[in-house]
Amino acid sequence: MTTITGVETHDVRFPTSLSLDGSDAMNKDGDYSAAYVVIRTDDPQLSGFGFTFTIGRGNDLCVSAAAQRALPLIGRNVEEIVGDLGAIYRELQSDSQLRWLGPDKGVIHLALAAVMNAVWDLAARKAGKPLWRLLTDMTPTELVDAADLRYLSDALTREEAIALLADLAPTRQQRIAELADTGYPCYTTSAGWLGYSDEKLRRLCQEAVDAGYRYIKLKVGANREDDYRRLSLAREVIGWDVNLMIDANQVWDVPEAIDWVLSLAEFKPLWIEEPTSPDDILGHAAVRRAVAPIGVATGEHGMNRVLFKQLFQAEAIDFCQLDSARLGSVNEILAVYFMAKKFGVPVCPHAGGVGLCELVQHLSIFDYVAVSGSLEGRVTEFVDHLHEHFVEPCVVSAGAYVLPTQPGYSAEMFADSIEEFAFPAGRYWSTAAARR
Amino acid sequence: MTTITGVETHDVRFPTSLSLDGSDAMNKDGDYSAAYVVIRTDDPQLSGFGFTFTIGRGNDLCVSAAAQRALPLIGRNVEEIVGDLGAIYRELQSDSQLRWLGPDKGVIHLALAAVMNAVWDLAARKAGKPLWRLLTDMTPTELVDAADLRYLSDALTREEAIALLADLAPTRQQRIAELADTGYPCYTTSAGWLGYSDEKLRRLCQEAVDAGYRYIKLKVGANREDDYRRLSLAREVIGWDVNLMIDANQVWDVPEAIDWVLSLAEFKPLWIEEPTSPDDILGHAAVRRAVAPIGVATGEHGMNRVLFKQLFQAEAIDFCQLDSARLGSVNEILAVYFMAKKFGVPVCPHAGGVGLCELVQHLSIFDYVAVSGSLEGRVTEFVDHLHEHFVEPCVVSAGAYVLPTQPGYSAEMFADSIEEFAFPAGRYWSTAAARR
Repeated sequence: MTTITGVETHDVRFPTSLSLDGSDAMNKDGDYSAAYVVIRTDDPQLSGFGFTFTIGRGNDLCVSAAAQRALPLIGRNVEEIVGDLGAIYRELQSDSQLRWLGPDKGVIHLALAAVMNAVWDLAARKAGKPLWRLLTDMTPTELVDAADLRYLSDALTREEAIALLADLAPTRQQRIAELADTGYPCYTTSAGWLGYSDEKLRRLCQEAVDAGYRYIKLKVGANREDDYRRLSLAREVIGWDVNLMIDANQVWDVPEAIDWVLSLAEFKPLWIEEPTSPDDILGHAAVRRAVAPIGVATGEHGMNRVLFKQLFQAEAIDFCQLDSARLGSVNEILAVYFMAKKFGVPVCPHAGGVGLCELVQHLSIFDYVAVSGSLEGRVTEFVDHLHEHFVEPCVVSAGAYVLPTQPGYSAEMFADSIEEFAFPAGRYWSTAAARR
Repeated sequence: MTTITGVETHDVRFPTSLSLDGSDAMNKDGDYSAAYVVIRTDDPQLSGFGFTFTIGRGNDLCVSAAAQRALPLIGRNVEEIVGDLGAIYRELQSDSQLRWLGPDKGVIHLALAAVMNAVWDLAARKAGKPLWRLLTDMTPTELVDAADLRYLSDALTREEAIALLADLAPTRQQRIAELADTGYPCYTTSAGWLGYSDEKLRRLCQEAVDAGYRYIKLKVGANREDDYRRLSLAREVIGWDVNLMIDANQVWDVPEAIDWVLSLAEFKPLWIEEPTSPDDILGHAAVRRAVAPIGVATGEHGMNRVLFKQLFQAEAIDFCQLDSARLGSVNEILAVYFMAKKFGVPVCPHAGGVGLCELVQHLSIFDYVAVSGSLEGRVTEFVDHLHEHFVEPCVVSAGAYVLPTQPGYSAEMFADSIEEFAFPAGRYWSTAAARR
C-alpha cells in the first residue's frame, strides 16, 4: 500500500518576454510560466508531476489555488486514487465554496487542471506506462467512467459515448503499430511570432519546410499591411502545397474578424484561429459562415466542456483546439474528445507554452487509437521552446511527434530548472534586477 | 489635487454555514465572504470602498488578485481617474498576463469587479452623490464611453447604445421623482433556503406576505418530493396572487431540467432560475422553449458581457440576473443593461450574499431612470442578511428599495466588522475552534 504524503507547489516563470518568443496581437510580452505540482508518496520512487500554464503575473494565484485544490489528496491511498480517477476528479472538483469562483473556469479550474494532471501522471507512473498507453489500455466503460459528462447529456449520453468507443476498441493495436512507425503529425508555430522580423520569419519558414513540416502557422491581427506582407513572404518561401494557418489571438469583434480574414483570403489559409472572444460561440459560428472555405479554429482559451459542447452544437468550428492545462485534465478532455467524435470535428490540441507539447502528444495518440480512428484534418501544435527543462521532453521528427515510451504524462521538470526559475526567489529572478 | 496613496485589501468571512442561511441544492454550506478593497487618498475624508462576493474558501485568491489588479492605481491623481472611468477600467482590465487566466472570468475578473467597484464608489463620493445619481447625471455619450463594448458590436453598436439612451434622457427627472415616492420593487429569498424546515418556511412566507412582498422565491432541485411539498405549502400560505419563483442553482442537465420543471408547473412559477450550467446558452434556450410560459432566469454566475450577449441573441432568457460583484463593475454592467434594453429583456439583478443588495439598488434605479424606462417584469432581489455590517445599509419598505441618499455605492463596511470577521486572524475566526 502506498500513501500520498504531501503535495508541493512551485511558481516557475521563464523570462520569454526578453526574446519576444510567444508574442502575438493580444499577448505582447508573456513570461511563460508553470504552476507546478508534485504529489509525493511514501514510495521514494513514486511521485506525480503536473502543472498548468500561464504567461506570468497571476501564476502565484494558480499556485495558491492548486495547493487548496490538492489538500484532499494528502494521506490518501494511492491505489485507491488511481483505481478510480473519475471519483477523485469529482471529489476535488465539487468543493462548493471554490466552485463559486467559477464554476469550472478561471484560476480555480486552471488549478484543478494542474492537480489532476499530476494525479494522471501519478497513475501512469504507478502503472509503469506512458499516459497514452494507460488510456488505450482502458475499456470503453472505464474511459467513460473517468470522463466528466455533467451538463452534456443533451449532446452526448453515457451510452452513446461507450458505443462510439466500442466501435474502435477491436482495432486499437493496429493504430498503435501505425503510429509507432510514423509518429503523430504536428505543425510548427515557432516561425510566426508577431515580434519577429521579416528576415527571421523568412529564415524560420524555410527551416520549417526543410525539417519536413507540412503545416506552418503565423500570427496576425495587429496591423493589416503587416499581415499582408508577412503572408506574402511566407507563401513565397513555403509555396502553395504546405498548409498555412493564421492566428489572431482574440483581437477582433465579429464584424471586424470577417472583414479582416476575407482581406487575407488570397493566401488560402487552412484556418483562422481565435478570431474573436473565446467565449463567443455564436460569434465563431457567424465568422465561420462568412469566411468559408477558410476554417475556424479555437479552443486554447476554451474554458470547459460546456463551452465546447456549444461550439459543436452551433457548428461554430472546423478545428477543436482543446488545451491540456486549461480543461480539468484528462477527465474533462475525454468528454470533449467524445463529443468531437460524435459531431465530426477534428481535434488539433493547442500546445507550446511550457510543457504543453509534452502533454498533448499523449492526448493526440490516444485520440487516434481509441476515439477518432482518423488522422484526416488532424495536426497537433508544436513549438520548439523550453523543452530542455523537462526530464522526458517530447521528440519531434520529420514533422511528427514520436511516441513517448517512459511511464507518466511527460510532465516532470528538472529540479535545477525549478530552482533557477522559481519566482521570485529563484536564482534567475533574484538576480534579474541587477542584470537589467 | 488628490492622490491615491494606497490600496488595502481584506479577506472578510461570515460564518453563515452555521445557520444554513444561503443553503441551496448546489451550495450546501457557504460562508458568505467579501474580498474587500479600500482605496485610500491623501484626503483623509475621501476613500473608495468596494468588494466582490464569494462563499468562503478561495476568498483569499480574490483578495490576492485584487491587490495585483489595484497596483496601477497607486500614486495616481483622483480627479484624472474619476474623470475618465472608462479609461481606468480598460487599463486595469488589459493586463495581458493576468488576462491569460480568464479572459474576463473567474478569480481575476471577480478581483477586477472588487477594485472597480471601489473606484466607482470613490468617484461617487468625490462627486458627493449616490452612485445612481452619478450615473443618471451622465450624458448618453459619457455613459457609453464608460461602458465596455468590446466584442459586442455584432449585437449593439456604440451608435445604437447612445441612441437608446438619448430617447429617455429628457424624461429622467420624472422617473427619479416617481421612485423617490414608491421605491424600486424587490422580492425576497429569505424564506426559501433549502436547509429550512417546513415550519420555518411557512412562517417566513407568511411574514413576507405580511411585509408587503408580491414576489417570493424558493430553492428547488435537491429532491422532487420535497420540492412538490414545499411549493404546495408556499402556495397555501401566499395564495395565487403573489408571484412565486423557483431556483435550482445549476443542479440539472438540460433534459432533467425540462422534466423536473414541468413536474412543478401546476404551482405556476414565474420563473425557473439557473436550471443548468450558467455557461450553457443553448441549453437555457432549449429549456426556455420547453417550459414556457414558465420563464427562464439566469445571470448570477454570468461571467461576462459576451455570455449575456449570446443569452440575448439566442433568446435564452426571460429575466437577466446580472451580478454586481461578478461582472467587471459598472463598466461591464452598463453594456449588459444596454443590450438588455435593445433585446427587450428585463434585468432583475441578483443580490443577497454580503452587500450585493447595497450595490444593486443603485443599478436598478439607474436602469429605470436612464435605460429601460419601465418597471414591467422587473423586480430586484433582496435578502435580509448581514446588512448590519454596512455603514449605509439598504432600506427596504413595503417590498421596495428606498432610494439611497448618501454619497457613494453604499459599499463601506464597519471597521469593527472587518476586524471581527477578518480571515483567519480576526476575533471571530481566531477563536472559532475553541467554541466548537
